[in-house]
Amino acid sequence: MSAIPEAFVTTTARLSDAVTRPFPAAAKRYVTGSRPDIRVPMREIAQTPTHTADGDEANPPIFVYDTSGPYTDPAVSIDLLKGLPDVRSAWIEARGDTEPLTGPSSEFGGRRQHDPALAHLRFEHLRTPRRAKPGHNVSQMHYARRGEITPEMEYVAIRENMRLDELRADPRYEKLLRQQRGRSFGANLPDTITPEFVREEVARGRAIIPANINHPELEPMIIGRNFRVKINTNIGNSATTSSIEEEVEKMVWSARWGGDTLMDLSTGKNIHETREWILRNAPMPIGTVPIYQALEKVDGEAEALTWEMFRDTLIEQAEQGVDYFTIHAGVLLRHIPLTADRVTGIVSRGGSIMAKWCLAHHQENFLYTHFAEICEIMRAYDVSFSLGDGLRPGSIADANDRAQFAELETLGELTQFAWEQDVQVMIEGPGHVPLQMIEENVTKELKDCFEAPFYTLGPLITDIAPAYDHITSGIGAANIGWYGTAMLCYVTPKEHLGLPNKQDVRDGIVTYKIAAHGADLAKGLPGAQVRDNALSKARFEFRWEDQFNLSLDPERAREYHDQTLPHQSHKVAHFCSMCGPHFCSMKITQDVRDYARARQLQDAGQALEVGMREKAEEFVREGAQIYKEV
Amino acid sequence: MSAIPEAFVTTTARLSDAVTRPFPAAAKRYVTGSRPDIRVPMREIAQTPTHTADGDEANPPIFVYDTSGPYTDPAVSIDLLKGLPDVRSAWIEARGDTEPLTGPSSEFGGRRQHDPALAHLRFEHLRTPRRAKPGHNVSQMHYARRGEITPEMEYVAIRENMRLDELRADPRYEKLLRQQRGRSFGANLPDTITPEFVREEVARGRAIIPANINHPELEPMIIGRNFRVKINTNIGNSATTSSIEEEVEKMVWSARWGGDTLMDLSTGKNIHETREWILRNAPMPIGTVPIYQALEKVDGEAEALTWEMFRDTLIEQAEQGVDYFTIHAGVLLRHIPLTADRVTGIVSRGGSIMAKWCLAHHQENFLYTHFAEICEIMRAYDVSFSLGDGLRPGSIADANDRAQFAELETLGELTQFAWEQDVQVMIEGPGHVPLQMIEENVTKELKDCFEAPFYTLGPLITDIAPAYDHITSGIGAANIGWYGTAMLCYVTPKEHLGLPNKQDVRDGIVTYKIAAHGADLAKGLPGAQVRDNALSKARFEFRWEDQFNLSLDPERAREYHDQTLPHQSHKVAHFCSMCGPHFCSMKITQDVRDYARARQLQDAGQALEVGMREKAEEFVREGAQIYKEV
Repeated sequence: MSAIPEAFVTTTARLSDAVTRPFPAAAKRYVTGSRPDIRVPMREIAQTPTHTADGDEANPPIFVYDTSGPYTDPAVSIDLLKGLPDVRSAWIEARGDTEPLTGPSSEFGGRRQHDPALAHLRFEHLRTPRRAKPGHNVSQMHYARRGEITPEMEYVAIRENMRLDELRADPRYEKLLRQQRGRSFGANLPDTITPEFVREEVARGRAIIPANINHPELEPMIIGRNFRVKINTNIGNSATTSSIEEEVEKMVWSARWGGDTLMDLSTGKNIHETREWILRNAPMPIGTVPIYQALEKVDGEAEALTWEMFRDTLIEQAEQGVDYFTIHAGVLLRHIPLTADRVTGIVSRGGSIMAKWCLAHHQENFLYTHFAEICEIMRAYDVSFSLGDGLRPGSIADANDRAQFAELETLGELTQFAWEQDVQVMIEGPGHVPLQMIEENVTKELKDCFEAPFYTLGPLITDIAPAYDHITSGIGAANIGWYGTAMLCYVTPKEHLGLPNKQDVRDGIVTYKIAAHGADLAKGLPGAQVRDNALSKARFEFRWEDQFNLSLDPERAREYHDQTLPHQSHKVAHFCSMCGPHFCSMKITQDVRDYARARQLQDAGQALEVGMREKAEEFVREGAQIYKEV
Repeated sequence: MSAIPEAFVTTTARLSDAVTRPFPAAAKRYVTGSRPDIRVPMREIAQTPTHTADGDEANPPIFVYDTSGPYTDPAVSIDLLKGLPDVRSAWIEARGDTEPLTGPSSEFGGRRQHDPALAHLRFEHLRTPRRAKPGHNVSQMHYARRGEITPEMEYVAIRENMRLDELRADPRYEKLLRQQRGRSFGANLPDTITPEFVREEVARGRAIIPANINHPELEPMIIGRNFRVKINTNIGNSATTSSIEEEVEKMVWSARWGGDTLMDLSTGKNIHETREWILRNAPMPIGTVPIYQALEKVDGEAEALTWEMFRDTLIEQAEQGVDYFTIHAGVLLRHIPLTADRVTGIVSRGGSIMAKWCLAHHQENFLYTHFAEICEIMRAYDVSFSLGDGLRPGSIADANDRAQFAELETLGELTQFAWEQDVQVMIEGPGHVPLQMIEENVTKELKDCFEAPFYTLGPLITDIAPAYDHITSGIGAANIGWYGTAMLCYVTPKEHLGLPNKQDVRDGIVTYKIAAHGADLAKGLPGAQVRDNALSKARFEFRWEDQFNLSLDPERAREYHDQTLPHQSHKVAHFCSMCGPHFCSMKITQDVRDYARARQLQDAGQALEVGMREKAEEFVREGAQIYKEV
């Protein structure tokens, strides 16, 4: 027992309640791919029937994309001490291009693993790290370019497609599949996502599948603008608060509400051990900003950073299983003076660290000069680049300025270089940008970075609403997603003010699910509107339970309804709490339809409509005359 | 004392705390116009100085548009029993085109006033209503078209201009006035708002000043797309909850957080008395949907509505002082079948009531056939039309459909008719519209309704997030405001689920202030960015108190900061709670600037920049070579 961190002894029990309870009327379903170990999770939400005068009409179940991992599967026994079940090891081993190491090959990783003082913090079931065999490249991009469809690619194809082909063939979904015309800003959304389409997009660099070979617990997902818009969440303790346990719980919480990926931005003293716990229990890709840990190792003195210790940090994290690294290699010496006149200077932590280093040494950014060596590490473990926007604007006044765009051009240069090595890349974006300047960010990113997936923080459309920056940024996020951003980094209400608690995380995630889904609808993603249509139909028919269950946050929707109308009888009442029984417009509309049906007006169809229009036009002519006479 | 409603005896005391306390560091200022009784309120927010190595630099006060009325002015003694001070009576009387009546000229209004059973509910200091003298039109549009600049027009010009001319001449504001290029979608935003510009816009019908002659307590404001985007809030009890007292308090609460106008949507039994209390204490324009009260009078039986009793209701409310009426005159018989195939039919209460009436009687909507008589009432009191969108879409699936747009075309026809009578008009809009279909709503409204101000509810960009519909709709609202909508009707988190409490109202309002301000920035409204720039400068300089005080919700911003760093010393700390002292990017940026200054790099200016670029380009060439060799 001595190796089990005390903090975790009771964690399993704790996760079983609010963090892991299944959503109401929801069941975990798995769609099996071409081999039995490709089992893609989806959430199936059951609906109640519609009551009509002619009896009940069944409403079909709705399938929604499920990021929550095994935590919401009652059939899986969760034990944080052991980590999640293995999803990918067989796929990775079958490729035959990797080999297990005897232990961490990073100096720091080895030291932490053998430090007896850390035993109480250490994850119990440490996995032996793997690495590409010499001369091999194990990135998904590399396989894609060789024409291979990996199990990961098939997995994400099934996941993105969400059984759409089957639903199209099922008459119960006919009305729900009614599609809006989208406006996709040059995206190329196919009717059906096939494994081959996934392969092409990954090969082209237009999408990435972040999937480190040392993170076999991962449920693969894809980031690219021809797929569902994704959202990233952040966790991380800081010098002032938080513990390992809290961070792991936040990760599960993030998965529950819809986080597609998660960045561990911890800066505390046990970063290494925290990360191990998170990775072993994370069903989603995990990203980090390695420079944070590197800075930690030199006691916060940016000037003391060296390429050698940074390199060791990359290997340390890659062997733990981190799926993508934010690398601020675009902060060049020549860009730094461009920030001097800004209202808010350099607001990216990584960017300001590198700027400080550059000025202190009067040398070019070592992330830039050693970029080729970084690529070698990335492809040996399949870590994806998230090329950092160290010079992103921190205020409306600084949006789209020369510093920001000069860095973006450099990121394009680096993208090309990484792609030559078959290393996967996404590009980070701002920040603070007013509404009318958002589109230019996407246009320029697509052009300068050759359509590599864009991954933006918000952007916030105004600076004046601290405590509401999930909303100021959610507005920008919906727009930038529509224009073509592939992943949106969430912002919580505590942005600029403090560390988010669990409710802040939930608020931030749901806000960003709204933004991402709004972008999917706007782009015309096939099938995206099924959930809207089903929920609206339920609303119109006073199926309150279905309305709650189909929503992004079923628990809060029900809670809010209960605040006004707490009784169970109100859940089936034919009126809603806003208007009371007399004034309910939906009830009146039902009456209108009943009235029409009773008089067999519905038989008239097109004829009725034309007839009424003619009659009404006649009326209008008379009516218009009446007006003139008054 | 018998005439004083018991419920109000203690209200004055209650309003004095959370609802009326002045905002921190804020002072009420009045700018006086061409006559001493034109006193336009503004909120002045003081800032602390910036500490530099060379000593303190003062930061100028920031002026923000203030909707909170006398409630936040410590110099005004508030007594809800007496109502607010009179602002406009002298202006109205001086025009000489109105006359006092002996009492309410509506049958219902007279009955309520003389019913002894209502004494305990009745407002104590009932004002004698006024009406236009026979043959006169007292609308602001009428005066504008005659070439007259009214005190109301001058008032709103000063209010919109926000001392911008003076600030431009003051060197302390130079940096803060730095402006972004806006994209105004055809708006014509002048550098300075003059009374003459206001007059022209009102005469043209492109803006309205809702200002009933029976609402002299009103602080005039303007709604039009060449002015600041406004927000409307709703209050109203329903059959299930709420009291008069709560509604009045919600009105003051709405004013506090930034509501520009307010609709009283009450449907309970004492609508008349509730409305009187609200109007006598309301500094903002009050709107209603008179058909709600009319329906109340016929016990909820839509079929029993008649033009005669509706007319009496309009006069009743006009003589109380309601500033704008939602009139669903565009729901025509021929439009109704167009809704039959919708997912959510008719969701507007007014729209469904009128549809039911039309079908029940097989007659054209009486609001349409009697529109000329309605205009006569409107111009006799200067009530503005808010032409209702009774057929607005209630779901994404129904957005921009034939029913919605057919009604909009009818509203355009009615606009022209109203303008022929010099009656002010705005046009209500949706509802539920996905992102990519929002712009079409504005384009079509401007064309079909001849640029009459557009006033939209949201729109919600997805249906799947009940409990977060302030956000789904806030995203749509920011966009539609940018495209040219003049006023945004707020939505609270309880939309579709229940009645909002005070915190919901605050969340809804602040969300909509964000949307409106985001639209102002995007359109390039002169001076709009001053507040963003000031707040961002404060943020960058760790002036925490100023950052809180300049925000839309200073109280919550401070509260959130306190949750992580509760001590007063942290309010002046040179680090923020997100990152702790070591990693604060803003601190590092300061270090970068200090470093540059210490080495006199700042003297180099343009030369430095060019020089560094050349040097760095050389470096890149070398760097690029290094890459190739690896």
